[in-house]
Amino acid sequence: MSLIEDLNWRHAVKAYDPAKKVSEEDLNKILESARLAPTSSGLQPFRVIVVENQELKEKMVQGALNPEVMRDSSHVLVFAAWDSYSDEKIDKVYDHHTDVRDLPRGRFSSYTDKIKEMYGAQTPEEHFAHTARQTYIALGLAMAQAAELRVDTTPAEGFSNEVVDEILGLGKLGLKSVSLLYIGYRDENNDWLSHMKKVRIPMEEFIIKM
Amino acid sequence: MSLIEDLNWRHAVKAYDPAKKVSEEDLNKILESARLAPTSSGLQPFRVIVVENQELKEKMVQGALNPEVMRDSSHVLVFAAWDSYSDEKIDKVYDHHTDVRDLPRGRFSSYTDKIKEMYGAQTPEEHFAHTARQTYIALGLAMAQAAELRVDTTPAEGFSNEVVDEILGLGKLGLKSVSLLYIGYRDENNDWLSHMKKVRIPMEEFIIKM
Repeated sequence: MSLIEDLNWRHAVKAYDPAKKVSEEDLNKILESARLAPTSSGLQPFRVIVVENQELKEKMVQGALNPEVMRDSSHVLVFAAWDSYSDEKIDKVYDHHTDVRDLPRGRFSSYTDKIKEMYGAQTPEEHFAHTARQTYIALGLAMAQAAELRVDTTPAEGFSNEVVDEILGLGKLGLKSVSLLYIGYRDENNDWLSHMKKVRIPMEEFIIKM
Repeated sequence: MSLIEDLNWRHAVKAYDPAKKVSEEDLNKILESARLAPTSSGLQPFRVIVVENQELKEKMVQGALNPEVMRDSSHVLVFAAWDSYSDEKIDKVYDHHTDVRDLPRGRFSSYTDKIKEMYGAQTPEEHFAHTARQTYIALGLAMAQAAELRVDTTPAEGFSNEVVDEILGLGKLGLKSVSLLYIGYRDENNDWLSHMKKVRIPMEEFIIKM
């Protein structure tokens, strides 16, 4: 199997079979791919919240575009980004880097000083615009990993961020929801998109060679 | 090979061997993975500009954090997002969808009317914040595809958007640069990161189960 085959196999599923659950083993691989996603300066400025509890899902559907898709999925992954950068957060990540690599703490301080200065000159809104972008790398890799395992996914931005943040208590964690990823197994009979051809714009339009 | 092995293999290469070029076949697979990336409403609101020309690269390094990495890479992929949404752009994508699927044009008009209304109420700045996010899904998949082929990559936000937009004439195309992806083959002797352990925050910190 190759990534291209996996990507051609997948589509944003429009109806899940609520009786089919994603195994712990597959779920862990999907989360691991998200964890391995590269991010700006290696800061991994987001977390993934895994929601399997049906009652929580029922609350989160408030304001969602496709409530039944969320409801019938096996798990909902919430990609939630740091609401801001701070010197402490940056130090914590780099202290971990040096510890794992058996290097003296501060080994990367000329670099971290630079990024602290850069983010120090920005507003929390600018920080979140940046941290939110990073989550999409992990979202893409999680979908690719699920496809490799033939687990279905539906990425979603059509939900109420306020509702999800409130229900999951993300504010206290310094996080804000960015996107959701529903995972599970398609209900072939009700997933209208299953029976349609995958469409992308032609390569000659998508790519510009210079 | 699996995606997780590929992601563990890769890192953001810090020095390329300028003598080694990525083959046309591998380049095309990397671009195809980016083209297959899922995007909000399937609009694919971005393009990938492929820069191989050394003179162009020399101009683009102006203001880049790691000019020698860009300079010595085999190709630079520029992920450039639509500067705004418009009814015409949305119709063009959905006309293509219906044509490819042998459906009457307008088959998805109740949906496209909704997204036109939503974007119609937003500013171009809000549009670009959204189109820019989508590019990161494709950036992630392009890196995964390169890794599958054992082609090295370095994602980069540390460059001058103004310089790149100007040199490539992106404004005229309704595009704005978001990130760069350098691709090529590492120079083992000079890529200091090659010899360091990959570090990510532990799974128990990265994931929050609810």
